[in-house]
Amino acid sequence: MQPHDLTATQAAAAISAGSLTAEALARSCLEKAAALEPTVHAFAYLNPDQVLDVARALDQGSATGALHGVPFVAKDIIDSHDMPTGYGSPIYKGAQPFADASPIAMARAAGGLLMGKTVTTEFANLSPNETANPLDTARTPGGSSSGSAAAVAARMAPLAYGTQTTQSTIRPAAFCGVHGYCPTQGDFRMSGVREAAGTFDRLGLITRSLDDIALLRAVLLRSPVPKLEAAKPRIGICRDLVWEDVDPALRNEIDAAASRLEAAGASVRDITLPPEFASLPDTHRPISAYEFARNFAFEIDQHWNQISQRLRDGRIKDGLGTTLADYKFALAHMYRCQAMLPGLFADVDVILTPSALGEAPLGIDATGSAAVGAVWTPLFLPCVTLPVFTGPNGMPMGLQVLGPLHGDDAMLAHAKWIEQAL
Amino acid sequence: MQPHDLTATQAAAAISAGSLTAEALARSCLEKAAALEPTVHAFAYLNPDQVLDVARALDQGSATGALHGVPFVAKDIIDSHDMPTGYGSPIYKGAQPFADASPIAMARAAGGLLMGKTVTTEFANLSPNETANPLDTARTPGGSSSGSAAAVAARMAPLAYGTQTTQSTIRPAAFCGVHGYCPTQGDFRMSGVREAAGTFDRLGLITRSLDDIALLRAVLLRSPVPKLEAAKPRIGICRDLVWEDVDPALRNEIDAAASRLEAAGASVRDITLPPEFASLPDTHRPISAYEFARNFAFEIDQHWNQISQRLRDGRIKDGLGTTLADYKFALAHMYRCQAMLPGLFADVDVILTPSALGEAPLGIDATGSAAVGAVWTPLFLPCVTLPVFTGPNGMPMGLQVLGPLHGDDAMLAHAKWIEQAL
Repeated sequence: MQPHDLTATQAAAAISAGSLTAEALARSCLEKAAALEPTVHAFAYLNPDQVLDVARALDQGSATGALHGVPFVAKDIIDSHDMPTGYGSPIYKGAQPFADASPIAMARAAGGLLMGKTVTTEFANLSPNETANPLDTARTPGGSSSGSAAAVAARMAPLAYGTQTTQSTIRPAAFCGVHGYCPTQGDFRMSGVREAAGTFDRLGLITRSLDDIALLRAVLLRSPVPKLEAAKPRIGICRDLVWEDVDPALRNEIDAAASRLEAAGASVRDITLPPEFASLPDTHRPISAYEFARNFAFEIDQHWNQISQRLRDGRIKDGLGTTLADYKFALAHMYRCQAMLPGLFADVDVILTPSALGEAPLGIDATGSAAVGAVWTPLFLPCVTLPVFTGPNGMPMGLQVLGPLHGDDAMLAHAKWIEQAL
Repeated sequence: MQPHDLTATQAAAAISAGSLTAEALARSCLEKAAALEPTVHAFAYLNPDQVLDVARALDQGSATGALHGVPFVAKDIIDSHDMPTGYGSPIYKGAQPFADASPIAMARAAGGLLMGKTVTTEFANLSPNETANPLDTARTPGGSSSGSAAAVAARMAPLAYGTQTTQSTIRPAAFCGVHGYCPTQGDFRMSGVREAAGTFDRLGLITRSLDDIALLRAVLLRSPVPKLEAAKPRIGICRDLVWEDVDPALRNEIDAAASRLEAAGASVRDITLPPEFASLPDTHRPISAYEFARNFAFEIDQHWNQISQRLRDGRIKDGLGTTLADYKFALAHMYRCQAMLPGLFADVDVILTPSALGEAPLGIDATGSAAVGAVWTPLFLPCVTLPVFTGPNGMPMGLQVLGPLHGDDAMLAHAKWIEQAL
């Protein structure tokens, strides 16, 4: 086992115990990157000398932080004061912010080593940049947190920040066969993260273990790192809404998983969504488009020719055509649906759904369907994707676990039980 | 009457009619600034040549935007791509962002002329910078939108952007004798505005007329500019909570105003707040402090010595000592109070309160009490301060008009009726 194979929790323990240095870990991750970047293109910015300088400085400091010496990468819409931040757009190529965004500053304050910036789609929307799926470079890694998922899957770094406005963390994590997590909406501060649509934008964590999610979450809350104990959940399986569009192979895997979880001792039942939820995607679209088109007023007005046709004809056109009344109508529906959530979780601890419609599709000119997120993101629930299934082409498929609002810690404990049982 | 005496609505009409040029208006505003800046210090950045260049370019373009040729200024926590943005902190002195924040881009897209950046307190918190009240330079202009209120009051510009996290727009507008407005929470996008505490942060508009508020609001929503017609409201007077701390002179003015409004034909009744509202300030404090201390993780970790003692010992210390559980407890109380709002507005269209505790206090080393905002800001209601009273020292005092959530247009129409009746 190489240092780059360690999870963040394992690496932090080894560094703390003196059996591993930050420099050795960084070198191992950099070697992985050097080997795979020519085909994967996970990084928008990576400077090995800068990484090794910081690693050596960390080795000379006292290892008090929970992430001391552990490399992490950040999606390139998250500002960093010492690395350019390009937002996946030619408009901002090479732009150097003055400050670290809150999530980067908090990880660094805990001893984390920002290794580089990972490729994002254009403004975290639908137009992908150059990243390929490390498990099959003919396929998309998903998006918009393309490089973050690819880097963690390729073992270039154990931890990555992504963001999610529709399904931009869960989908790439699922497509790349790693863990992806979004907290209850509002748990993590987003200051310094370029806003796409603030009502939905969430920081996403991409890792290779559930323990690492708990670790990084604690760092972001400035709270003690919990010991994540597996806890047997009451499970609801949701085969509603997008279910008909899901690859039959993934549907079969979920059906089989339900039986295995029940056999392992969990209570498992079917969950039917309230009929109002059917229009959640029609709620997500106007809200996100309205906000996006106003957030990007500067780029629209001053840099129109440097915006992709896909973005102009998609979310921007959509957003400019959405009025305040449309927007508020959609928000009101969203809040009505959120008010029904206690009923949904009355008899279950977690809800299981597909993480995406199937395996990562072929081609890197699109990032795959975000349909699952258009239903669940407007509900603000904490969610995690577990890389527990394999599809017909040998690519990973994800199981999404959703918990009730503010139930992140319990959800992660239940997800751990589910992962172990599968 | 000089061009700088015009409201934005009047100036836009004159420019559109060809009876005024953008350049003549800009020159008039610049002359006012040249005369008063040595004592008022409203501007963090003002480059007259740059302003005149833009004005001449606007005069050569077609006057299609609702703000064509009208100068506006923006609080220096709002990013601008062609003027430095210092956030009121030595850490960011001279920092030049790459993009315009959404509100600046939208005003410019409507033909508005960004005249300069106005002084903010440090990170829009409590430590003031150099601005004095233009009506009495021995007194504070209020804060945190100090320079924005001072510039509009001194007729250096007809329009200003401020922000409000507690009472940072309503208070300075009241202290300087101008109009200040905050929309229903969430109506205006804040992308590119440095976040203090996102749950509460709102863009504030500072003007010398209610029509100008309606004009600028329409620009920010990309909606048609409405004709603001005065509408007689059912009025509730709130003498609750901070009332005992309000200057008796202001209490008397409000009592007398209630009689005049009733005599003018409005129904006027007393409003008693639900007992739960008494702890709203204890809700505001942990939420704003928790968010602030995490949003400013970079500055805390890397620039501690350049943060004022007042901020370190105040909101930052407070915030670092607030846990996620404390934070969520406070949020839950806030949402419970918000759920009681329909009852509060069951029989009234607007609620009237003092805009601050009285006149602007003497001294420019503090910005005056924000106590009124600590009650009302967590309710997310649209609000406007009207400069209708004069205090014992000849300084203006404000009347705050609050409307129900999403009732901004009606609230402005009712405020217009109230202003005319007083």
